[in-house]
Amino acid sequence: MNGASLSFLIISLLFSVTAESSPCSINGMPLVRNISELPQSDYGRGGLSHITVAGSVLHGMREVEVWLQTFSPGSRTPIHMHSCEEIFIVLKGSGTLYLASSSHEKYPGKPQEYPIFSNSTFHIPVNDAHQLWNTNKNEDLQVLVIISRPPVKVFIYEDWFMPHTAAKLKFPYYWDQECFQTSLKDEL
Amino acid sequence: MNGASLSFLIISLLFSVTAESSPCSINGMPLVRNISELPQSDYGRGGLSHITVAGSVLHGMREVEVWLQTFSPGSRTPIHMHSCEEIFIVLKGSGTLYLASSSHEKYPGKPQEYPIFSNSTFHIPVNDAHQLWNTNKNEDLQVLVIISRPPVKVFIYEDWFMPHTAAKLKFPYYWDQECFQTSLKDEL
Ligand SMILES: [Zn+2]
Ligand SMILES: [Zn+2]
Repeated sequence: MNGASLSFLIISLLFSVTAESSPCSINGMPLVRNISELPQSDYGRGGLSHITVAGSVLHGMREVEVWLQTFSPGSRTPIHMHSCEEIFIVLKGSGTLYLASSSHEKYPGKPQEYPIFSNSTFHIPVNDAHQLWNTNKNEDLQVLVIISRPPVKVFIYEDWFMPHTAAKLKFPYYWDQECFQTSLKDEL
Repeated sequence: MNGASLSFLIISLLFSVTAESSPCSINGMPLVRNISELPQSDYGRGGLSHITVAGSVLHGMREVEVWLQTFSPGSRTPIHMHSCEEIFIVLKGSGTLYLASSSHEKYPGKPQEYPIFSNSTFHIPVNDAHQLWNTNKNEDLQVLVIISRPPVKVFIYEDWFMPHTAAKLKFPYYWDQECFQTSLKDEL
């Protein structure tokens, strides 16, 4: 083997390793994927397990995105708001949905509480502040989450009486951060 | 009771019966719904059980819609195509996805076959003709289906070599038919 073919081999190896080791590349991803083999993490949020089942940043979706999330007892989402549609399907466990339907005021205000349970479904009205909480001390809460217009742009509130003008935009959101730049580069 | 109050009572009764007995009204629908109590039908397609978990026509969704569908052994979708995004999550059973990725030709053409299995996920590339088939003789195939831009507008092919120009638009689709007119009236 001469010098030229050796460097070609090394370069080819480097490229193939880079392509396969990146969790952010949609190239070479199989069409049918086993959900139990997809990347899973708490993304720095204790008590959460998040899997992007089909996503904008990870899989090139443009109009819908699906997550599988598990909340350990006591864990919860932040109080938050978004202008996209969101549908929940509860696969396991139970908990509480807090929803401020009067979010048209200057702040979300005291939310209404809705018990949620296994095999239930609900959707969040666009622009209403809400929070999902595993209030069941004995069991994990597992939900499928479907959002429109990904990647999600989320406004986070510290409490229900924080003015809308003080809410903090978190974008890209927790699970989109790692691959967001790579995905943008792919588009260019 | 005089004549006036009696007719008031009758009119009130008529109104309340009408409001509650219509499966097409989103008024008074609870925010959190038990999926096992939602209307279920085969909509004239043998071997299918369809439930609209959250829908445009039934629940006022504008950007996403979710179905829970069960296919008995041997049953299948038509060969069809749509310009919206579609994500599948297989909850139970197994089967085959037929997908014509070369749908950019004059007709879909011979499809590729992909085995699908419990806890798998896949999405259909926009405008690619496809068909889902429960090819497992021993078990029902149950899937969650998520589509964007509801209500769905479907082009149906009699076979994989029918020209795109001969495919038939079915709109409103099977499960949207009953309530479609009512929903339009609600919007006006
Ligand atoms: Zn949300
Ligand atoms: Zn389809």
